Formats: sequence, C-alpha cells, structure tokens
Amino acid sequence: MKTFYVLNGPNLNRLGKREPGIYGSETLQTVERRLTEVANENEISIVFRQSNHEGDLIDWIHEAEDAAGIIINPGAFTHYSYAIRDAIASVSVQVVEVHISNVHSREPFRHTSVISPVTKGQIVGFGTQGYELALRSFL
Amino acid sequence: MKTFYVLNGPNLNRLGKREPGIYGSETLQTVERRLTEVANENEISIVFRQSNHEGDLIDWIHEAEDAAGIIINPGAFTHYSYAIRDAIASVSVQVVEVHISNVHSREPFRHTSVISPVTKGQIVGFGTQGYELALRSFL
Amino acid sequence: MKTFYVLNGPNLNRLGKREPGIYGSETLQTVERRLTEVANENEISIVFRQSNHEGDLIDWIHEAEDAAGIIINPGAFTHYSYAIRDAIASVSVQVVEVHISNVHSREPFRHTSVISPVTKGQIVGFGTQGYELALRSFL
Amino acid sequence: MKTFYVLNGPNLNRLGKREPGIYGSETLQTVERRLTEVANENEISIVFRQSNHEGDLIDWIHEAEDAAGIIINPGAFTHYSYAIRDAIASVSVQVVEVHISNVHSREPFRHTSVISPVTKGQIVGFGTQGYELALRSFL
Amino acid sequence: MKTFYVLNGPNLNRLGKREPGIYGSETLQTVERRLTEVANENEISIVFRQSNHEGDLIDWIHEAEDAAGIIINPGAFTHYSYAIRDAIASVSVQVVEVHISNVHSREPFRHTSVISPVTKGQIVGFGTQGYELALRSFL
Amino acid sequence: MKTFYVLNGPNLNRLGKREPGIYGSETLQTVERRLTEVANENEISIVFRQSNHEGDLIDWIHEAEDAAGIIINPGAFTHYSYAIRDAIASVSVQVVEVHISNVHSREPFRHTSVISPVTKGQIVGFGTQGYELALRSFL
Amino acid sequence: MKTFYVLNGPNLNRLGKREPGIYGSETLQTVERRLTEVANENEISIVFRQSNHEGDLIDWIHEAEDAAGIIINPGAFTHYSYAIRDAIASVSVQVVEVHISNVHSREPFRHTSVISPVTKGQIVGFGTQGYELALRSFL
Amino acid sequence: MKTFYVLNGPNLNRLGKREPGIYGSETLQTVERRLTEVANENEISIVFRQSNHEGDLIDWIHEAEDAAGIIINPGAFTHYSYAIRDAIASVSVQVVEVHISNVHSREPFRHTSVISPVTKGQIVGFGTQGYELALRSFL
Amino acid sequence: MKTFYVLNGPNLNRLGKREPGIYGSETLQTVERRLTEVANENEISIVFRQSNHEGDLIDWIHEAEDAAGIIINPGAFTHYSYAIRDAIASVSVQVVEVHISNVHSREPFRHTSVISPVTKGQIVGFGTQGYELALRSFL
Amino acid sequence: MKTFYVLNGPNLNRLGKREPGIYGSETLQTVERRLTEVANENEISIVFRQSNHEGDLIDWIHEAEDAAGIIINPGAFTHYSYAIRDAIASVSVQVVEVHISNVHSREPFRHTSVISPVTKGQIVGFGTQGYELALRSFL
Amino acid sequence: MKTFYVLNGPNLNRLGKREPGIYGSETLQTVERRLTEVANENEISIVFRQSNHEGDLIDWIHEAEDAAGIIINPGAFTHYSYAIRDAIASVSVQVVEVHISNVHSREPFRHTSVISPVTKGQIVGFGTQGYELALRSFL
Amino acid sequence: MKTFYVLNGPNLNRLGKREPGIYGSETLQTVERRLTEVANENEISIVFRQSNHEGDLIDWIHEAEDAAGIIINPGAFTHYSYAIRDAIASVSVQVVEVHISNVHSREPFRHTSVISPVTKGQIVGFGTQGYELALRSFL
Repeated sequence: MKTFYVLNGPNLNRLGKREPGIYGSETLQTVERRLTEVANENEISIVFRQSNHEGDLIDWIHEAEDAAGIIINPGAFTHYSYAIRDAIASVSVQVVEVHISNVHSREPFRHTSVISPVTKGQIVGFGTQGYELALRSFL
Repeated sequence: MKTFYVLNGPNLNRLGKREPGIYGSETLQTVERRLTEVANENEISIVFRQSNHEGDLIDWIHEAEDAAGIIINPGAFTHYSYAIRDAIASVSVQVVEVHISNVHSREPFRHTSVISPVTKGQIVGFGTQGYELALRSFL
Repeated sequence: MKTFYVLNGPNLNRLGKREPGIYGSETLQTVERRLTEVANENEISIVFRQSNHEGDLIDWIHEAEDAAGIIINPGAFTHYSYAIRDAIASVSVQVVEVHISNVHSREPFRHTSVISPVTKGQIVGFGTQGYELALRSFL
Repeated sequence: MKTFYVLNGPNLNRLGKREPGIYGSETLQTVERRLTEVANENEISIVFRQSNHEGDLIDWIHEAEDAAGIIINPGAFTHYSYAIRDAIASVSVQVVEVHISNVHSREPFRHTSVISPVTKGQIVGFGTQGYELALRSFL
Repeated sequence: MKTFYVLNGPNLNRLGKREPGIYGSETLQTVERRLTEVANENEISIVFRQSNHEGDLIDWIHEAEDAAGIIINPGAFTHYSYAIRDAIASVSVQVVEVHISNVHSREPFRHTSVISPVTKGQIVGFGTQGYELALRSFL
Repeated sequence: MKTFYVLNGPNLNRLGKREPGIYGSETLQTVERRLTEVANENEISIVFRQSNHEGDLIDWIHEAEDAAGIIINPGAFTHYSYAIRDAIASVSVQVVEVHISNVHSREPFRHTSVISPVTKGQIVGFGTQGYELALRSFL
Repeated sequence: MKTFYVLNGPNLNRLGKREPGIYGSETLQTVERRLTEVANENEISIVFRQSNHEGDLIDWIHEAEDAAGIIINPGAFTHYSYAIRDAIASVSVQVVEVHISNVHSREPFRHTSVISPVTKGQIVGFGTQGYELALRSFL
Repeated sequence: MKTFYVLNGPNLNRLGKREPGIYGSETLQTVERRLTEVANENEISIVFRQSNHEGDLIDWIHEAEDAAGIIINPGAFTHYSYAIRDAIASVSVQVVEVHISNVHSREPFRHTSVISPVTKGQIVGFGTQGYELALRSFL
Repeated sequence: MKTFYVLNGPNLNRLGKREPGIYGSETLQTVERRLTEVANENEISIVFRQSNHEGDLIDWIHEAEDAAGIIINPGAFTHYSYAIRDAIASVSVQVVEVHISNVHSREPFRHTSVISPVTKGQIVGFGTQGYELALRSFL
Repeated sequence: MKTFYVLNGPNLNRLGKREPGIYGSETLQTVERRLTEVANENEISIVFRQSNHEGDLIDWIHEAEDAAGIIINPGAFTHYSYAIRDAIASVSVQVVEVHISNVHSREPFRHTSVISPVTKGQIVGFGTQGYELALRSFL
Repeated sequence: MKTFYVLNGPNLNRLGKREPGIYGSETLQTVERRLTEVANENEISIVFRQSNHEGDLIDWIHEAEDAAGIIINPGAFTHYSYAIRDAIASVSVQVVEVHISNVHSREPFRHTSVISPVTKGQIVGFGTQGYELALRSFL
Repeated sequence: MKTFYVLNGPNLNRLGKREPGIYGSETLQTVERRLTEVANENEISIVFRQSNHEGDLIDWIHEAEDAAGIIINPGAFTHYSYAIRDAIASVSVQVVEVHISNVHSREPFRHTSVISPVTKGQIVGFGTQGYELALRSFL
C-alpha cells in the first residue's frame, strides 16, 4: 500500500482559530479526517504531521524518502527556509506545495517561495480543498 | 447548465510541438477532449479558446462575465499583461490560473505573475493535468 | 473644423460596471455624449474610440496624425506599452494622458507611466471629468 | 463665498526669470491676476501664497482647513516632503496638485511625488494654464 | 533642577484632530499637561515645543545642549531630515525618539528613520503614553 | 491574577557574557529577578522563558494566547522569522517587542524587523531597562 | 527555393516619417525593395511583413516554422514581449534580431531585449543596412 | 567691487564644537575672518551667512543672483534638498560646493549630493581650507 | 588535550546519498573517521555533531565556548541564520566555516553567507577534504 | 588606401582552444587570414591586433584615430572598461563592436556592455563571421 | 626639496583633442608647464606622468611612497579600479583626487568614485585649474 | 616533476608594509620561501609571480595551461576582472583562489568575487598560511 506524507509547518496547528477571515474556520483535524477518507477510498495510507520546528519538517522529509509522495504546506518557512528546500532536493520522492490562502494577494514577503523551484508543483489559494487536490494529483 | 471558460494564451496552440521537454507532447486538442469528457460526466459545458492576441483574451474574459468560472493559462502574458489583470478584476466570476510547467524552476522572469493577485488560486507544474484539477476545484 | 481623437484602452468598455468604487458608475457612452456636447458648443468634432487591443490604439494614433489633438486613457497599457509610447513619439500631434482614478494612491505598478514622458501633460484623478478638462486644455 | 487656497512652493517666486525654456516667461503675479479674474466671474475668493520655507506651506495647509479647496504646486518639495504630505492628510479639504512642466520628461528624481497619494488628483505639464484647469475642476 | 526638552515636529499641532483612528483623540496640550505632572512629581522641569519648521527643531536641539535629555517626535522629518540627525549628533545630550503610532505597520516610507542611528533609543507605537515612558526612562 | 509572558530568543542566555560592550554585563537571571519585583508590587505574575529554538518561541506564543500580554525579545529571529511573526498574528494578545541595544546604529541587517508590523509597539536601545518599560506600558 | 521571413513590429510602418533624426528617411517599402534585389540575386524568396499587433507577429513566427530563417525587428515589443520570445523559442528556425538605431545610446528601457536570449544573434545600429547584413549572414 | 556669497547650511554654526574629530576645532567665525582677509587682499567683498532653515538658504541664493559667485556648504541639505538644487539652477551665477570632511569616507547617505549636478564644481575634504580654495578658484 | 568541535547543519546527515554529483558519495561517518585519525595523530580530540535543528547548532556553539576551535558547515543555515551568526559572535573561540561544494558556482542564494563576517576564515569547494584542511589550519 | 583596425581583447588569443562549445574551433589566425582576403578584394588594408592588456587596446584606439574604421571585440573588458569606452569617445573614427557568442544567452554579467553607447553598432552571436559582417558594413 | 607626483590616467594624453566641449582645449603639456611654474615659485619639484595602463599607475603610486603628496586624476579608472584604491591605501602619503569636468552632471557611471574613500579630498569640475588648486592645497 | 603556479595580483608586492593590521607583517618573499620548502619536501616545483598589471596575470594563466595547478590571489582584481575570470575558464588546469584577510568582514565591495564561480575552491582569511593550505589541497 502506497504511503503519502502530509506535512504542515508553523502555526497550522492553529488553523480554524487563526485569522479565520484568511484561513477559514476548519481545523487541521478536519483536514486530516477528510484526507483519510480519500485515502481509504483509494487504498493508500496517509501520514499526517504538523510542527512549529523547522528541524522536525526536515527530519520528516528525510523519513519520507521512500514514500509515494509528499504534500507540504511549509507555512511561513516557505519564504526563507533554504534548509527545507535542500531537504526536498535531497530526496527523490515527488513533493507538492500547498498554500491555503492566495499568498499572491497578501503581503509582498509571501510572494516568494524558496521551496517552489525544487517541488513538482504548487496549489495555491483553494483553502483546505488544496490538500485534496494535491492528493488527487498523485492518484 | 453551468458554463466554464478555458482560455489559453500565446503559443499554447503549439503545445505538443513546442519544447516538449518542458511542456510535454500532448496537444491542446487532446486537453480539450479530456476536459469535455469531465464536463459531460458532470453535466456542465465548456468554452475552450486559444489566442496569441492579448486583446482577444480580454474580450473573452468580459464575455465570460456570467459564466460559472474561468480557467486561464495566460502563457507569457502572465508576466506583464496588467490589461488582462484588470480584465479579471473587472468581472465578478472566479478565475483559476493554470501553468503547465513549474515556472518557479525556470527563468527568473517566469517567477512573477501579475495575474495571480486577482485570481482565486493557482495550479502550477502539473502538466496538462493542471486544467483538470482546476476544473475539479469548481465542482 | 478641428478634429480631436479620444482614445480609450483596455477594460474601459466596462466603465460603469467595473469596480464602481474606483471608477464611478458612469459609462463610456455617457462620457462620449458629454464630450460631444462640449465639441458642438466649440465647433470642433470628436472621434471617440475604445479597444482592448494594443495594436488598435497604435493604428489609431497613426491615423490621428493630422488631428488637432489626442486625448488618451491607455488603461493598463500605461504601465508597459512602450509600443504605444513610440506611436505617440512618431506623430507630431499633441497628446494629453487622462486617468480616471488617482493611480498614485493605488497599487505600486500603477505609479509608473511609460507614456507620460512623450505626452504634453497628464490629468489624473478627476473621474470622468478628466476627459473634459483635457478637451478644454486644447481650446 | 467659497475660498480657495493657491499655494506655491520653493523657487516659484522666480517664475518667468527661472529657466524660461522649461517654465515659460509668465510671472507668478500674472498667474495670480488671471486666477483672480476667474474667481471674480465665479464669485469665489482666492488666497494666493508662495514660500521657499516648507514650514510655511504646512502652516498654510492647516490654515486652509475650512477652505473649499487647495491648489498646490509644491515645487521641489514634491519629491521629498513627507511633512507636507502629512499636512494634506491631516485636513479634510480636497487638494489638487499642479506642476507647470511635464515632470515625467525631465530628471528621474522629478518622476516621484510623495504628495500625490494623498491628493485628489494631479494636473501636470500644462504650463501656468494648469492652475486654471485645477480651479475649474472645483467649479 | 534638571531640564528635559520635549520637541514635536510637523503636524503634531494637529494631534487630536488629525486622523484620530491612527493618532488618537488626545491633543498635544493634554500630553504637555500630563508630562508636567510627572515633572512636578519628580522635581524636574520640562520645555515643551512644537514646530512645522525643520530649522526650528534644529535650533532647539542646539539650545538644549546643556539639558538633561531630549525627547523628540520628529513627525515626518523622521524619514528624511539628515539635518536633524546631524543636529542630534552635534550635541552630547542623550536623545530619545518617540512615535505615537506603530510606524512599522503603516506605509513603507515610515519604516525608515534617519534619526534612529544617533539617538539613544526609540519608543514606538504606545500612543501618547510613549512620551511618558520616554521621560521615565531618564528618571 | 494577570499573567505576562516574557520571551527571549537565541543567544540571550549568554547575556552578561556576550559582547558586554553592546549588551551590558547584566545576566538574564538579573532581568528576571527585577521584573519579578515589579510583578510582585503590581500583583501580576510573570512567565519568563528563553530558547535558542525558533519552534519553542512559537509554541510559547500559542501557549500565551490567554495571557494579559507578551513581551518578546526575539534576538536575531527578529530579522527573518516570518514564522514567529505569523505566531504573533495568530493570537489576539498584545505583544511588545524589546531590543536591548539600539539596533539602528549597528549592522544593516539589524535595521529590519519582520516582527514589528504585527506587534503593538517597540522599545529599543534602553538596555535591560527596556523589559521594565515594556512591562510598565501594560500597567 | 529557400524562403526568409522579414518581420517588422510596431511603428515601423512609419519609417521615414518617424523621428528621421533617429531612424533615417528611408521607408519600409525601400527596405523591402532592396532586400528583394538581394533575394533575386541569390535565388531565395522573401516574405516581408509589418504589424502593430503583437499577436500578428506571433502568428507569423509560427507560420515561418519551416522557413530558412527569420529576420525580426520587434520595435518596442523588444523590451517586454515575453510572448514573442516564447514564440521564437517554440520554433526551430534560426532568428536574427535587427535594430535600426543604436538602442544602447538611447533611453535605458531600450537597453534590455527580452528577445535576444532566444535569437541566434543581433545586428544593432547600422540603420536600414542592418536588414541586409542579417540576410547576408544567412547566405 | 565684486561680491561673493559664502552660504553655510544646518549645524555649521556649531563648527568647532561639533564632532571636532571630523570637522576640526576651528569655528565659523574664524573661517569668516580668514576669508575676509583674502577678500581685502583681492579687493572683493564677502557676504557670509549661516542658517539651519532650508528656506533661508533658498532666499539667499535668489538674493545673490547678481553676485560674482556663490560658495555653498549646504551641510546635510546636500543629500536631499532638491529645493536648494532648483534655487541654484534658477540663478545664472556660478556656484561652488564645499564640504569640510571627506564625505566619501563616511556614512553612505553622505556619498550622494543632489546639489552637485547644478554646481560648477566641488571641493571636498580639505577642512576649512576648502572655503579658501573655493574663493581662490574664482580669482 | 585540546578539543575541537566539528558541527554540521541541516541535510548533511544525508551526505553520500544527497545529490552525489554535487556533494560526492562519501558519508558523514567517513568524514568523522578520517578526522578522528588526524586527531589521534595530533593528540587532540574531536566532538563531531550534526543536526537539522538550528537551535541545536546554537546550543552546541555555546557549549564549545572553551574548545580550542570550531569547524562548522552550517548547510543552508549559512544563507539566513543570523541566530547562528550571533552565537558565533557570542563566544571567543575561533570558528572556521567549511562548504563542501563551490557555492559560488551554484544558485545565487548560495553566494551569500551571513556567517562569514564573524568567522576566522572560509574553506570552500574542496569536497570533504575541506574539513581536514580546516582542522590542519588550527594545528 | 583605407586602413581598418581589427582589435581583439583578452583571451581571444586562445580562440579555438578556449571553450570551443561556445566560441567555435577556429583560431584568431584564421580570422585574420579571412579578413585579409576580403581586404585584398576590396583594396583596403587591415591592422589586426590582440592583447590581454587593457592599456594596449586604449593605445591602439588612439593610434587608429585616422583610420577608416575600427572593429573591436573587447572580450571581457566589454563589461567594465570605462577606460576603453572613453578611448572610443575620444576619437572621431567609427567603431563597430563584435561578439562571437550570443552574450545575451549567457551569464547576466555579459548582458551589459559599457562600450555599446559610444560605438556605431554591434554585431553579436554570429561566430567569427561577425568580423566579416562588421567589415562589410564599412564597405 | 619636496617632491609631488601628478599622475594622470587613461585618455588624458588626448587632452585638448578629446571632446573639447567637455574637457577644454588645453593639452596635458600645458598643464605640466603651468604646474612646473608653480613648483619653481615654491621650490618644490614635480613628477608628472600619464599612462593608459592601470598597472603603471599602481607602480607609480608605490614609487611615490616617500613623496610629499600625490595628485591623481585616474580618468575612467575612477569608477572601477579597486586596485588603484588599494594602492593608495597601501601608502601613507596624502593623495588628492582631481577631475577636470563636473562628473556629477554627466553619465551616472561617472558619479561613483571607488577612489574617493581613501583619498584626502577631491577637487572636481574646475577644468585644468583643478590640478593647481590641488597643488596649492599642499602648500 | 609537477609544477604549480602561485600568482599574486596588485599591491601584494607591498605585503608586510601595507596595512599590517589587516595583512600581517610577513613579506611576499617570506611566503615564497616557505612554499618553496613545502615544494622541495614534496618534489614539486613552484613558479611564484606578482604583478600590478591585469594583463600579466592573464598572460601567466595562459602560460600555466599545462601546470599541475594554479594558486591565485588576484588582490583587488577579484572584484571586477571578468578578463581574469575568462582566462581561468579558458584553461583546463585547476585553480584555487586565496585571500589573506577575511574579505567578508571588510568593505562590501570585497564580498563579491567574480573569479570564484570558475575556480575549484577558495581559502579565505587564514593569513599567509592560506597559500600553504591551498598548495597542500593539491597534494
């Protein structure tokens, strides 16, 4: 059975509570539940993680080295974590980058992703539906 | 029956022939055929257009004012056509931006989209599958 | 009888419908009607055109070569169309640039006009009244 | 009777003597006389002032708080006086910015106005006629 | 008895009337009154001044040469008055810079202070309470 | 009883030992002791923490969600940790930013704080006294 | 018989009339005539076109896909038309870029060509003789 | 008898007291005395002025319109006063710019003079001897 | 016996597996073994560590305060970790920076090291031999 | 008999041996031989020189003051030798700039020529044929 | 007897012939003659040199190590020769930089001198009189 | 017997005399002597050269084409000599770049090396020991 990693970066544990006008009112738990349903239907498994520590995300990307795919929402690390970028480049598994809000209509610092050049693709602005689209892109 | 516009910008008429290492070998006709299948399954209709003329894309966005959604791949206009940006801002229909290749791993000028701030979201780097993901995001 | 060209660029056909908070609720037809009144009072004639195609604006500027003056609102072409700039520089007729909204209190990209250096002057921020002020500046 | 303030910044006292190739040979006194005629015709009154001191312009903008409108040519202060900008933002009266020459065809430092974002609009490049167009825009 | 100078720059005479959403509704007179109370309690004296003229602020900084401290809110001069910066550097008395609003969450030009490098410290964003915190920092 | 969090970022555990010419010779323990005295006098409580791990600071900001206020000296994270910025924006508690040295008279990279736009205010350059001024600003 | 396309962009239809101090007094018709003579001598044929519409140039580049070579003077499109750049990259025929004036001794915006990286070479500053040199480079 | 103006900008009244390591310990009075000696020897007269007010310097430049030459040390106004630049450009008398210290070995903001392009020349870094060299350059 | 710390940053645990075309096929274990041999020969001891967590590296630099030297390869932290820079500046032990690949012939973001200004020196591009050269530089 | 100078800058003595994928395998001697043939046919003479010393190129440009034309390939001096630029500007003979490779498709530093603004024109990207095209442009 | 070196950089051998509108019609020989007269009057000696080779200027600066002063006009090397800058910094003799024309009213690249930060001062824009003023500054 | 070239650029002939606080008090002769010892021990030979002329360094790099390695300290040429960069790229021998001081803790212009991208590696900040480390890296 294929395994997919879904990795969430800093402050995503506050999804639903954090600036709901921007990020919606759904929690990360709900996202996990919905993705698990899709996983069950498609007979794949999902490893769903969140951390506010950059190093954890790097460790997990290394751990996912033999997975069938990684879906990552690096949160604010998107804009400066060259270490996560290098982690992605260091594994051969395909990585899809997801952002909940349309980062391009927000502050300028959110317009640059240091991660994007080493991912397969990006899904941006579709709310929490973005995770599902990313997962379906692998199927 | 809901109608969706799928608009393609300059040089996408050469899809399949143009730099296949970057854009794949599938033609725009095949893309249209596949989207039509999805449309039929979901009982929606699709208006599928391509032009190398910036003005045509603007005219069509105005025309799509009452459509259920627009999927646009503005090609190279992505990087400088503030006129297309204004056209999108001038209609209330939701617009999804699609790019076939991962523009963020190519030349620097491709990293900036003047269109993104006024679209709902972007789907980038998934090859021609991106159009389908965009369409499904509306369903 | 002197003839003046009034040329409008992309998306101005949507005036009145497009972001009325910024551009007001008057249509381009009303603007034309009001300018025609001024023209009749002053025994001049007016050629009033709009296009979403950059090439049309260039063709019309060439056509206006022997007119008594050009009033142009290049819309979003203001910010990148060096081709329109060259068209203006290639004719000897005086050209006045009009913008309906105060572009300087909007997005940064609207602060730069590549057209201004080759026009006689600019009238910016006076709503649709700007066309009339421009016409009166010629009389 | 409505009162309008017409405020002129540094070096405009030398109008007519100063670089006549750029600014024309008309003096500020002539401008005042012509605006007074327009004022008389329209039964409004005009307060006409000039200073080379940034602080005077700020004092006068505060003083004009209850006027019907301000027409300001801030001269070179246009390009760096955030203090004048704040003065304009601190009063609720509408302010129109006038420049005699087409600043956009001159040195790069003249292309930026720190004042424009807080004014109603700008009239640029129409020589001393610009003051009159500005006054008429209020009528 | 120790004397402290409290110097206010352009447009601060309009405090209370000027953009109260940003600067609050308290006037500069109230600030003076409150600081005088603190001064009386602590047996120090206060010289409280405001001007819209850059040169006045420079003159006053020179005058304060032998004071026990200067508290300065240079208003918009903060962002470009290298002359005030040099005035501060030319006296040996310690200078504290105060800003009423959080300038870092406002327009980009407000993010740069040419004054800060030659002051002892900055107190920013605490409303008119900032003057009091600055005074207490000296006690 | 109201609780205030005082959070210190990387290298502040070396306060007193680290570049005493810049940061003074007082240790973080002394700072904690002095703040505790102020807290006792004012019948509030203080949670005092330090970490060299960005993720710890984010976790603690989330933890402080119901506190009466946060005082944070993010150390060098000030200049690049958009993740801490997002953490602050994700809680509704007021946050005051403190810097011991006058960062504006040091290296250019220290002049930019990515944290400031989402804090209430900043107190910069007052040595370890800055923590106390910050605490008093809440009282 | 080999065919070469000679494509001219915006405002080149005004050659001879347009700023003759910069572009000379020869018309585009004369250029065509001279190139036709060279073509006849060398038993090749020439397709000579001009348009003010960016889309026309793109269409013609696609059309020239099987030609022996393209000579293009993109006029002002040189400086921003990434769409023409992509059109050139999408065909395998060799393309030579010609500019009549020495663009490097003119306004800064003319110093950048977004086209050059995908052409074979550039011939710049030789007046209308440049077209002939370009043609001879193919022979 | 020829008259020369020697104009000094902000903070030069503190010469001798102000940062003597940079500006030396000689006062402005001594400079005036030395220049007067040179003037007497050469049968010319000198008008020697200093102000911290930008507007005063502009007024005096206008006043010096018929002088034989102006020597100006604009102090910190050098770096931003486009108003003084315009004042110099508005008179036909020759202007020499003097700086006491070598501004090019100090802070970056001191490396740019907005005045230099409209002066005859600059004498920089020769201490107070620079005024004398400037005066001799006119003789 | 003198102790040297050899600290490795993010993704270096994947050395040998990670992009071997750039980093070679030797693992970090081999590097440690080779350095230990050199250490034994020279009667020094080596503390060899790796972490993907920025905070760990900071903690270890503090820990190494009394060591004879630190050799650090900060991996991607090189380009943005001002916190590691401050950690190095906070200890008096000499630090040598090592990079395995020639970062200056790779992506632009790798050309800037925020660490270098506070280290003794850098050894860049010598593969894993660089660690040995660094160690020998201390002997 | 007219004389033309053909001047080659640094590293062009290695033509044929140096990066043949970029510069081709023809040597400078072959280029000279071919140009001499053209010269003989046209009854002109050629002075053909190469140096790795900037000063030699300047000396030779001065020497060529009375020649009928100069063809120069300044090699890497193209990108920074303002001294060669000034040498060209100091003589009245026409100068044509040649580059063997298409510099615009190589490293960014090669995209800027400080020489171009003072030459008649540039021929770029035609291999060693470029010298011949340049020579023919004079005939 | 004190010796002063007067060093001239590239293209100054063409003084009098080179762009006389900018540099005047006096030759370098005349300058030398005039300086020699001043030298004789003051019983000093002068070493007067010119070269188009950067290395010669560096050699001569080293040679002048024990001179009483150096006057240098580095010509275009002013703008990029960090090697000449380092040569000046490597000797303890005082160096005065002279420019004949007012470089600040010419092309932007002439506004930056990499030499100025290590010289004593600059004399700019006084024509060939500048050398004399420089020499007198030493006397 | 293998030969290594050790090439030194401008002002390194003054090593020991030049700013000893930065470069140490050892002369280049001492460096040569020490390297010769290492060479003798390892049965290799060394060609040791220094010049202040850019062209000499280029000539010598070409000459070293068949050497076993080049060690180069280009001095200030490091920061702008694209000609030396091209010389290095034009030979296949490996080149190691050495800097005596830690250029990254000095002036900003010293932070950029145009040479580094085409060298094998860099050894920076180890004083004159750097040459020895470079030589050992080859052994």
